[in-house]
Amino acid sequence: MIKTITGNRDFAESLRGKRSSFLLCMSNTKTAAIEGITQAGIPGMLHLTPTLDAEFIAIGEVRSLGTIAETPKGVPTPALITRAVHLLHPFREIEMLDLGLEITPKLEHFKLHSFGIAPSGSIAEGANIPAEEVFEKGIAFAQNLVLQSDYIILGESVPAGTTTALATALALGYDAQDKFSSSFKNAPSGIRARVVDQALARIDENDDLFDTLSKVGDNMLIFNAGFILGLQSRDIPIVLAGGTQMACVLLVINRILQMMEGELDTAKIALCTTKWVAEDTSSDIKALLEMVDFPINAYYADFDFSLTSHPALKLYDEGEAKEGVGAGGALMYALLNGITKDSITRKVESFLQ
Amino acid sequence: MIKTITGNRDFAESLRGKRSSFLLCMSNTKTAAIEGITQAGIPGMLHLTPTLDAEFIAIGEVRSLGTIAETPKGVPTPALITRAVHLLHPFREIEMLDLGLEITPKLEHFKLHSFGIAPSGSIAEGANIPAEEVFEKGIAFAQNLVLQSDYIILGESVPAGTTTALATALALGYDAQDKFSSSFKNAPSGIRARVVDQALARIDENDDLFDTLSKVGDNMLIFNAGFILGLQSRDIPIVLAGGTQMACVLLVINRILQMMEGELDTAKIALCTTKWVAEDTSSDIKALLEMVDFPINAYYADFDFSLTSHPALKLYDEGEAKEGVGAGGALMYALLNGITKDSITRKVESFLQ
Repeated sequence: MIKTITGNRDFAESLRGKRSSFLLCMSNTKTAAIEGITQAGIPGMLHLTPTLDAEFIAIGEVRSLGTIAETPKGVPTPALITRAVHLLHPFREIEMLDLGLEITPKLEHFKLHSFGIAPSGSIAEGANIPAEEVFEKGIAFAQNLVLQSDYIILGESVPAGTTTALATALALGYDAQDKFSSSFKNAPSGIRARVVDQALARIDENDDLFDTLSKVGDNMLIFNAGFILGLQSRDIPIVLAGGTQMACVLLVINRILQMMEGELDTAKIALCTTKWVAEDTSSDIKALLEMVDFPINAYYADFDFSLTSHPALKLYDEGEAKEGVGAGGALMYALLNGITKDSITRKVESFLQ
Repeated sequence: MIKTITGNRDFAESLRGKRSSFLLCMSNTKTAAIEGITQAGIPGMLHLTPTLDAEFIAIGEVRSLGTIAETPKGVPTPALITRAVHLLHPFREIEMLDLGLEITPKLEHFKLHSFGIAPSGSIAEGANIPAEEVFEKGIAFAQNLVLQSDYIILGESVPAGTTTALATALALGYDAQDKFSSSFKNAPSGIRARVVDQALARIDENDDLFDTLSKVGDNMLIFNAGFILGLQSRDIPIVLAGGTQMACVLLVINRILQMMEGELDTAKIALCTTKWVAEDTSSDIKALLEMVDFPINAYYADFDFSLTSHPALKLYDEGEAKEGVGAGGALMYALLNGITKDSITRKVESFLQ
């Protein structure tokens, strides 16, 4: 079942039975190298997470490392959920967007879009992103995109991405403190707060919007702001498959529109996340979505791991992992196409045997 | 699940969720009339097998004879598998290629491509095929093909086709003895060996490649060599849905390329067969595939009849029938689209009630 966070259910229902393309935004920010900042990946190998996630959703195995990315507590990557959906009710196509990767996924026969975007720096020292350029690349990508399906599900894999998103939202003047989720059950607020403070301290009062994004953002946030605005001239519905990071993309768009005195037609845009994000008590995606000037439909897929007894998956229900690699949007796609919670659970379990 | 025989899994994975057209090559060779040479069909009516297979996969009934083609031991044609897949996850279209049929399938509304190709003679007495002409018709077909789908699954129904394939491979100088499968569990090596010897005895040292193919080949092998080479100028992925006969098409192509000093781009070509062929101990498809100069992705669909208790289907698992009518490729198509082994089994069983 699909539940509504903001807006109404009509847009989601209109996608029932439609075929979707899954686009995965992969990006590295040096912010992830800060000790203890994220749980999304293997310690010392966090930069590999998006690469391994891409390999796993596309072909069901990881080539750039021996095993599937797990968090230190043994929570497997949400890529398992996205892959399970792809096996049960395949996406029309999977395409990858290299938004600044350190290691390219080892895949043949899958479309990998490259934009000449470098991994971004740590926001503690300045992300150093050519923000306007990355933004414009997002617009251009939207304008030239050729799609074989009815709509896009846009996922992301950006280790430490909730930290850069929090810093970005605060730097853009939103009251976003305590509203961003974390890959940890208990967000590492000490470390994260210190990093965000360091990032915000670098903002100068003369900085314009893109100067700010250059310092505290990440490539995914900036590119996708451009991508979504670029889609306005196309007739392609899009589901932002993610939690508070995707909400932050909308916060960025909101400031860009205010700057340009523009408007966003959101009739064909929605956000869809997981139940773990929607019900997370240490973040507040609904509050973030209500900070933008435009109406936005947002949903979550009513899926949890109550039907499994696998201890690693149970950790999701305990809040140790919540979202990523488009899991929320993928679950919505499955549920909208008649795939049951039980089938999804069994398929995810099959990867862990 | 799709398993890899040669190459890697990427090409197969890239077809997940894509729609396919199913093309069935139907051909008669008088070789099938040799007593005891094949188990693919009804004794005395073997020439009808491709006609009946085509009718059954297209419309679910046989019109040119009262009952579905069965082998003497009661093994039903693999067309049942292909038809089951088509019911569970339909092909975008089914088209028939008459590559020398004695009896045309009685079908309306299905595209039947005719090429003015006559049934070929028995290789024991000279197949008497206008090989260059048939080859060129394959090229022309590829160049003019209009497709509504993302890729082609190419199946075949040629009674005695493994015998003509074995003779062809040997005549072309491949070390192919004991590497070709048979419709029998225990290949009729006495009869087959005698026929192949008779065929090879007809080869003259002055024969060129096409002279040789004219004498010992069959229309399917020669036409498809042209078809696949013709597809090089098109952007259409193709799955050769078959076992050692389809491997032989690649052996033929390999010799043609050597003669022309040409190359084959195999990025969009794969072979897919059944588990019964892949695990057959009396043939060796992997060895055949490794004899060509180009890399080739080859797979098998991890499907067997372990979930049924129907005695006629159990014979597959005992090796009495292995492949044909594109069963391996059809199974891959089903598995790549989320159809379960259990559903396929139940659907095939339903035809036998």
